[in-house]
Amino acid sequence: MTSKTVLIVYAHQSAGSFNAAVKDAAVDELKKQGCRVIVSDLYDMNFKTTATEDDITGAVMNPNHFCYGNETMLAWQEGRLASDIVDEHKKLKEADLVIFQFPMYWFSVPAIMKGWMDRVLTLGFAYTLEKCYSEGIFRDKKAMLSFTTGSHETMFSSNGINGDMNVTLWPIQNGVLNYCGFQVLAPQIFWAPTHLSPEAREGLLESWRTRLQGLLNEAPLTFPPADIFDKGKGFQLKPEVREKQADSPFGLTVGQHLEKPLPPQSQMKAGV
Amino acid sequence: MTSKTVLIVYAHQSAGSFNAAVKDAAVDELKKQGCRVIVSDLYDMNFKTTATEDDITGAVMNPNHFCYGNETMLAWQEGRLASDIVDEHKKLKEADLVIFQFPMYWFSVPAIMKGWMDRVLTLGFAYTLEKCYSEGIFRDKKAMLSFTTGSHETMFSSNGINGDMNVTLWPIQNGVLNYCGFQVLAPQIFWAPTHLSPEAREGLLESWRTRLQGLLNEAPLTFPPADIFDKGKGFQLKPEVREKQADSPFGLTVGQHLEKPLPPQSQMKAGV
Repeated sequence: MTSKTVLIVYAHQSAGSFNAAVKDAAVDELKKQGCRVIVSDLYDMNFKTTATEDDITGAVMNPNHFCYGNETMLAWQEGRLASDIVDEHKKLKEADLVIFQFPMYWFSVPAIMKGWMDRVLTLGFAYTLEKCYSEGIFRDKKAMLSFTTGSHETMFSSNGINGDMNVTLWPIQNGVLNYCGFQVLAPQIFWAPTHLSPEAREGLLESWRTRLQGLLNEAPLTFPPADIFDKGKGFQLKPEVREKQADSPFGLTVGQHLEKPLPPQSQMKAGV
Repeated sequence: MTSKTVLIVYAHQSAGSFNAAVKDAAVDELKKQGCRVIVSDLYDMNFKTTATEDDITGAVMNPNHFCYGNETMLAWQEGRLASDIVDEHKKLKEADLVIFQFPMYWFSVPAIMKGWMDRVLTLGFAYTLEKCYSEGIFRDKKAMLSFTTGSHETMFSSNGINGDMNVTLWPIQNGVLNYCGFQVLAPQIFWAPTHLSPEAREGLLESWRTRLQGLLNEAPLTFPPADIFDKGKGFQLKPEVREKQADSPFGLTVGQHLEKPLPPQSQMKAGV
């Protein structure tokens, strides 16, 4: 077995939290397998969250109209990015798998983790307009979300008050992870752990440990290959693919739903 | 006409940006109508983005397991929240309409704006488990997203490479704005303005100015009332509502899709 490197991007304020226990379980279990595990503990690092000119050493290209994407791409090419971004780039380059561990805040990642995404997934380094989705720069890497919710699972169903979790996950799993080319593993969702007994929480950790044993060999979620979209026609689905899909009772994905019912659990389970 | 107060939460680094021009157009046009306009210019304020113990003055309740929601609720009740949060609370209380103005980063708001949401929409002040969605604390206020994209409109369609924008908007418009009770106005989307000529951009600003003239009287997007979900049964749709919906070709919303096709444009247009 070749030794793999796993980067855990971790966002909880407290070492006494359930998120910390989940992260620690991942570190232990993956090390047992011989993995090298790197943790970016964002609160502990006091990780800078905002996308500003300070992310660039030296002069910016266009001080009158600072455009973060273009400016940081140039700084990356010229080796003038802030050192904390460079550090994360190095970890990301070495990682075979990236686990994002966080409590869900407002149907999304906490701001400090969004800041990591905004600043570390630099234009040029993590994606270009040509190299994205299935042709993305990180297509040989895997990534996954592992998170706790405040709401119960029933509330995040397609007839629950929060709506289908598959919909809520789409912008992050497709728009961030799949966009950069990552093979996206099924999310690990810990439903409302604060409402559980210590024993029930320990049970959740135990099933997480079990999953971790096979995690690196899991098949990823299904996303459409980039080449079924027509670059010359606004990156819309090619007519022949659309025709082929006509017989299916479901859309292709949550986002490419083609005015059909969403494919069930497509952002939650591999192979569906 | 009673004078209304509008809060613009604005996140762009540069006064020379198109986002700045959009924000300035809103300030001008709304003032012309006699509105009081307050701008929270997040980058300019160097707004703190991370949800940490520093948001609380004095001792925290549980230093071994710091839980941001509970700790800040207590601090809010006891008047011990950080002054920058208190300042935003004051603006929010006075506002009849909140406009979030930003460039879309990674299918969502920039981290600095997510930080505003994470920190300012305090448990107790902005929501409780009882007071949410249509029974939410801000149900007499309106809110909307106004943003620029990097991608063209065709790419964010239901057969485009980024998937349906209605899906991407759901977690923010439902999970943040509707959750707090806001009446959510249709988003103002400026598709890929950097790819346009200065004249075309001016045209976009002109239609924005036109929309602003009637903005405060617009009907909001449709979200289901909270009382159609059964609190005693995991906040799932009541069977009688589900039955009533059986004849419809569409689901209720993007999130409550009931395994049917999504209602077209429901996160983009009012009255659909």
